Amino acid sequence: MNLPDQLAELFTEDCYVAYGPDFGAEGRAAYRETLDGIGTFFTATSHHVSNIVVDFSEDLTTAKVRSVLYAWHRYTKEGKADGYFFGQYHDDFVRDEEHGWRFTRRELRASGVVDFHVKKQIPIGRA
Amino acid sequence: MNLPDQLAELFTEDCYVAYGPDFGAEGRAAYRETLDGIGTFFTATSHHVSNIVVDFSEDLTTAKVRSVLYAWHRYTKEGKADGYFFGQYHDDFVRDEEHGWRFTRRELRASGVVDFHVKKQIPIGRA
Amino acid sequence: MNLPDQLAELFTEDCYVAYGPDFGAEGRAAYRETLDGIGTFFTATSHHVSNIVVDFSEDLTTAKVRSVLYAWHRYTKEGKADGYFFGQYHDDFVRDEEHGWRFTRRELRASGVVDFHVKKQIPIGRA
Repeated sequence: MNLPDQLAELFTEDCYVAYGPDFGAEGRAAYRETLDGIGTFFTATSHHVSNIVVDFSEDLTTAKVRSVLYAWHRYTKEGKADGYFFGQYHDDFVRDEEHGWRFTRRELRASGVVDFHVKKQIPIGRA
Repeated sequence: MNLPDQLAELFTEDCYVAYGPDFGAEGRAAYRETLDGIGTFFTATSHHVSNIVVDFSEDLTTAKVRSVLYAWHRYTKEGKADGYFFGQYHDDFVRDEEHGWRFTRRELRASGVVDFHVKKQIPIGRA
Repeated sequence: MNLPDQLAELFTEDCYVAYGPDFGAEGRAAYRETLDGIGTFFTATSHHVSNIVVDFSEDLTTAKVRSVLYAWHRYTKEGKADGYFFGQYHDDFVRDEEHGWRFTRRELRASGVVDFHVKKQIPIGRA
């Protein structure tokens, strides 16, 4: 939906977001900056998240979540083939009264890509 | 599965289904008619629904649901490339004792398509 | 993730797994053998499971599950196009104190495939 402000609001101030081995952001402000590219780089994207596993802490204030991502990207650049991403999100969440659940950490790992612009990925660690 | 009768049964008599800006159906009978094309137009389809958010009304008799769709279509027409649809369903449901939950409204919005036969889509409203 | 031992552990000793009309395995040991191919045949795969319906038995010790699969496969063989699979899993589960929930039966049915190496599929039974 290209709503970077609303997206960043789902993260804590001190979050860490890793979208690649050389492409991470420390803190919400830095993460918010990386989201500017959504509007200029893509004319459309679609993210399909499934295979979700949630591990809650005993006191239900934190959770670790593993999900599987299939993402499609249409580039602004004319003639550039659509990019496809297959991988996993590994997320840490924290809950408080004021904000509900928010991301404290998001890491994107790749099973593989097709015509994707980012060349180096964090691997899923396939045996 | 190409089971249009069973599919239509999931909708209320007075439902509204919008599959495009110029392609909607008022009422279950009209919707049922649009489903005839599944068997003649496609030899196979597959619909993958994820990212589901359900907002129940307080009395639990209605619900608004937003989900994300990835759909693949193989056409009857020889040589026609498979069609892909990336988008969102925006659905309204109602529940009663007799029927359980049924659709009262279904709207399909597109993030984008690849080789899809329907050219005009209801956009997701990307910023 | 190419973890065939861990995958096989999710199945009962007397399980039945049908990946095609001519490609099934009776028992966990036979199933485990079929999984050797994951590492040699593919350099990467990604499986996206959605549209999950669970029917529990009354005593909650068994369950029937229907889910929808979108799977992507990158082959070891150089130059071979990526393979795509669209279909359904039809699974039977059993639960006991010692193991929790495990598969007793898994059947994979195909809606259709694109550039996939297995040519004969169990059909979904499209009308």
